[in-house]
Amino acid sequence: MIFKRKSVRSFTDEKVSTDKIKNLIRAGMQAPSAFNSQPWEFIVVSDKKDLKAVSKMSRYARPAENAQKLIIVLGNTKRDNVVMPMIQQDLSACTQNILLQAVAEGLGAVWLGFYPIEDRVNSLRQYFNIPEHIIPFSVIAIGYPKENKEPESRYDESKIHLGKY
Amino acid sequence: MIFKRKSVRSFTDEKVSTDKIKNLIRAGMQAPSAFNSQPWEFIVVSDKKDLKAVSKMSRYARPAENAQKLIIVLGNTKRDNVVMPMIQQDLSACTQNILLQAVAEGLGAVWLGFYPIEDRVNSLRQYFNIPEHIIPFSVIAIGYPKENKEPESRYDESKIHLGKY
Repeated sequence: MIFKRKSVRSFTDEKVSTDKIKNLIRAGMQAPSAFNSQPWEFIVVSDKKDLKAVSKMSRYARPAENAQKLIIVLGNTKRDNVVMPMIQQDLSACTQNILLQAVAEGLGAVWLGFYPIEDRVNSLRQYFNIPEHIIPFSVIAIGYPKENKEPESRYDESKIHLGKY
Repeated sequence: MIFKRKSVRSFTDEKVSTDKIKNLIRAGMQAPSAFNSQPWEFIVVSDKKDLKAVSKMSRYARPAENAQKLIIVLGNTKRDNVVMPMIQQDLSACTQNILLQAVAEGLGAVWLGFYPIEDRVNSLRQYFNIPEHIIPFSVIAIGYPKENKEPESRYDESKIHLGKY
């Protein structure tokens, strides 16, 4: 999955089943989190009108428009044991698990960055009625990939330091 | 990998080959990043004295002492195209890929949180001669797992909202 995953930004018209979306979220929920606080929540978006609205929230969010579904990953800042300085790390690990599970399900997906860019966060918060103590973190656009290009290797040995920097 | 992964904090005496460590880092480098900036770098730590030093940098870093190796994930803030507000997300996706690849290699691993806790970050920076523009982000303790318990499911359907929050 790790070496097959790449960002997929255009999708076919084929529907994505609720079961597959549940599997993606199930994978997200298996992520590690500081103190195992599991601060994540999710909004699943299927309505075409809502997909279009999200696609306009940032110039980088356009792939949302032709996606079949979106998973919005949220962070609950009032969750028991949540370690606030590390909530971004928890939610990123969760998001990455979802992207990888998409590969396992034969789907394509792309991580659309929202947090901590203020206007993007506010747009999501207002549109989806997200309360103040819940952070709108990332949006994952999901569908069946229109193209099937192989991902390129990003390996670069010059980035590895042995023993000391 | 996603459903088999769990945090492993105690390790056997079996050595971990350099090839396996390279595979873990190769997986880390395949992570998505904002603008594909790939801001990660890595320090691989093998010396017992250094493992012990890291284990004392925080009360949560103790698993470093009995690990075979550590991978310290760093963020280069001067990397071309780096999107600073999202560098934590990039480095977390990278760290998560390494944890998952550890499962694929038959290894155990645990993510030790450092950034942005100031004293932990400073301890790493000083000990490993990490320059100011490089963020010491996370430490991954790696070895062969001493126990082989099955991970528990964390699925919780009450965290899924449909359409709106």
